[in-house]
Amino acid sequence: MQFVEFELTTEFRDRFQQALDERDDNFIRETLENINPADITTLLYEFNSEESKYVLELLSVEVRSKIINDLDTDTRKKFLAVYQATEIAQIVNQLDSDDAADILNELPIKTSEEIISLLDPLLRSQVIDLLRYDANVAGGLMAKELIKARHHWTVVQCVEEIRKQAENVTKFYAVYVVDDNDKLLGRVALQKLILTDPKTIVQDIYDDDVVAVETYMEDLEVAEIMKKYDMESVPVVNSQGQLVGRITIDDVVDVITEQAEEERQIMSGISEDVEEDDTVWKNTRARLPWLLIGIFGGMLSARFMGFFEQELAKITAIAFFVPLIQATGGNVGIQSSSLVVQSLVNPSFVDEGLYKRLSKVFSVALLNGLFLSLIVLAATLLLFDNQRLSFIVALALFGVVLFSSFVGTITPLILNRLGFNPALASGPFITTTSDLLGLTIYFLTIHLLL
Amino acid sequence: MQFVEFELTTEFRDRFQQALDERDDNFIRETLENINPADITTLLYEFNSEESKYVLELLSVEVRSKIINDLDTDTRKKFLAVYQATEIAQIVNQLDSDDAADILNELPIKTSEEIISLLDPLLRSQVIDLLRYDANVAGGLMAKELIKARHHWTVVQCVEEIRKQAENVTKFYAVYVVDDNDKLLGRVALQKLILTDPKTIVQDIYDDDVVAVETYMEDLEVAEIMKKYDMESVPVVNSQGQLVGRITIDDVVDVITEQAEEERQIMSGISEDVEEDDTVWKNTRARLPWLLIGIFGGMLSARFMGFFEQELAKITAIAFFVPLIQATGGNVGIQSSSLVVQSLVNPSFVDEGLYKRLSKVFSVALLNGLFLSLIVLAATLLLFDNQRLSFIVALALFGVVLFSSFVGTITPLILNRLGFNPALASGPFITTTSDLLGLTIYFLTIHLLL
Repeated sequence: MQFVEFELTTEFRDRFQQALDERDDNFIRETLENINPADITTLLYEFNSEESKYVLELLSVEVRSKIINDLDTDTRKKFLAVYQATEIAQIVNQLDSDDAADILNELPIKTSEEIISLLDPLLRSQVIDLLRYDANVAGGLMAKELIKARHHWTVVQCVEEIRKQAENVTKFYAVYVVDDNDKLLGRVALQKLILTDPKTIVQDIYDDDVVAVETYMEDLEVAEIMKKYDMESVPVVNSQGQLVGRITIDDVVDVITEQAEEERQIMSGISEDVEEDDTVWKNTRARLPWLLIGIFGGMLSARFMGFFEQELAKITAIAFFVPLIQATGGNVGIQSSSLVVQSLVNPSFVDEGLYKRLSKVFSVALLNGLFLSLIVLAATLLLFDNQRLSFIVALALFGVVLFSSFVGTITPLILNRLGFNPALASGPFITTTSDLLGLTIYFLTIHLLL
Repeated sequence: MQFVEFELTTEFRDRFQQALDERDDNFIRETLENINPADITTLLYEFNSEESKYVLELLSVEVRSKIINDLDTDTRKKFLAVYQATEIAQIVNQLDSDDAADILNELPIKTSEEIISLLDPLLRSQVIDLLRYDANVAGGLMAKELIKARHHWTVVQCVEEIRKQAENVTKFYAVYVVDDNDKLLGRVALQKLILTDPKTIVQDIYDDDVVAVETYMEDLEVAEIMKKYDMESVPVVNSQGQLVGRITIDDVVDVITEQAEEERQIMSGISEDVEEDDTVWKNTRARLPWLLIGIFGGMLSARFMGFFEQELAKITAIAFFVPLIQATGGNVGIQSSSLVVQSLVNPSFVDEGLYKRLSKVFSVALLNGLFLSLIVLAATLLLFDNQRLSFIVALALFGVVLFSSFVGTITPLILNRLGFNPALASGPFITTTSDLLGLTIYFLTIHLLL
């Protein structure tokens, strides 16, 4: 029977909820038997923690732990709060070391200590080793499960080792070859192992052209490397070059996805990891900080324009072009910063240095600025009857394009240098800055030329 | 010898350029021998097409084709323009069918027809089959290379098949099991094959719980499925359920990365696939469309404010708060739309329906609006001496938060329904709309209450 993708419909959910309310264990068990654990995870998002726990206890511990492992961090935290330490330990015992460490990291230290003491000895020592690393470095991504072969082994011995580990190591694509000190020497792809005469010595067939990463390498860099060299798994070594773990591509896919999501949130001025589905209060809280900064910028703008009250009173039309100036400043600023962020995320070229970078940004801004200013000049001359103001608006706009390009380019570079996420510069931050900058340029031009 | 990641320094590039200028073939060959092809690709971005071609011809055709395959589409197009069809055919002959089809798709139809006629017969028929599919569906992502076993084969026969295909199929993790009509029945993981007695019949060991995708499934959906079910490769079947190809995780990683990049560009109002590194002219052109729309919005705003010239002339302070109103409208709009976009990209929950969604958005907006309005009311009462205007600004701000939330939520949903990329709604589009909306609400409030 071929497995087809499961689609969660409202009808199905309601039917399931009914079964839950009626404690119709048979229906629940029978339904879930035909569903992939990954889909059961999706289903559980629809129920509260107590209900989910009830459902999970009708399933085998293997399936249960797979499902809990698939939950997102927030949901899992809430969910595991209704579990005893012994129950969690039972679940964690089923997991790979990296997933086990992730879950333990999410729990209060007291609970996690208790769970660790209840784990199987091998997993316990692996997890303790992994918990030393931050989540965002190779050591925090890797799993301890892997197939390791000594260089003087025969292929038969490798296969024997695979047989021994088959239960622990679920996904593997290669056997890693080490010397007697566990120093990584290379790898033998599984398909090579299949095709080689069993009596061959590993020494003679292993591939020594292997890219490895060190435990402290940042996760995004690991992702870059695995993408660049097209690897489905990468060995992790310590500073002595000893093999200590392995990162598989699925973990890296998660890193890439999370990074994209984080960047989207930053760019749109959302300050917490929030989803539409979260509570009203969490949604409100996540939005407030950037809105407040916007408000602060707006109040500053208001005060600033107050200095020019006389000019405004004389020629009201001055006010008409404030939106035009600000919108253009904001748009140019965001375009510039996001191009810089992109080049920082994918550093595929030699860094040309700040000077060359800025001179290019400047050329683009000059062209765009000239073009836009001319259009605005023509339009304002046509639509409004203040020639002098038209020239001033066009000139100020030109200045705004130049300055916003500069600020939009330089800000993410500075943030990056200071160790912040440069994407911070492509959200409301740059909009607020550009607003104030644009206003200043506009009114200075007015003050000088009108 | 263990391979360490290569870092491209300015010094190295300059030394290499010198060798190129002097046609120092020995230096070039010796240097590149120790570098992974993926890194040579990076290096080539530094030279022009003629120089790159010169370098590549010093390398073996295997390495050469790997490098050309790694180039990004734009560079490759420019690059292959200096090649003869016969030269390209020689390169394409080294590639997997999916990569070959991608390259042929980029070339002018005349050239690609010529190249196809020069390909090895097997690859030719595979490529012709693949060229039928759009690039953004499973059929366009898949490769024809895979290991296929009949259900009545023994393990020995499978290994024999692997041996036969070893040269063609570079990355494989499983043998796909089909019946005599090529209908997909399941898979046998490579590790299982290693551990099973060679005389076993495939029928008895294959795993029938296999997720497959159909040729016409969208690439993003394929990515979702592979992520969800944690697969390193997925079989592709036609509408008769026959096995026609296979998609590997590295292709899906590319899909995910490209999507994130595209979204970043859309959100920041950049209309072409452009990088900082591209020419000044291309950079200018990519930015202009959205800037023009912003300018258009700004001119509309100016005209609109013209209607309230009398009010503005009487109370200049009205103008002071235009930036505040607009900035908040823009920020709220972007926050709302990006949350919707996120939920459309990761549809992990039951769709609650429009009504429930909007009522939640409304609650969040009410809370945020109330909070911000009160702050602005207090601040303006304190800093400006027009009580009536303070109340009006606060009230208008409240309205702006509500309406921008609504528009920010509804726009991506409408775009999505109409078949456009909903992310279009989180860029300058929503900013421009919110600007106009905010201005309208503000001046209507003034008109009614002042």
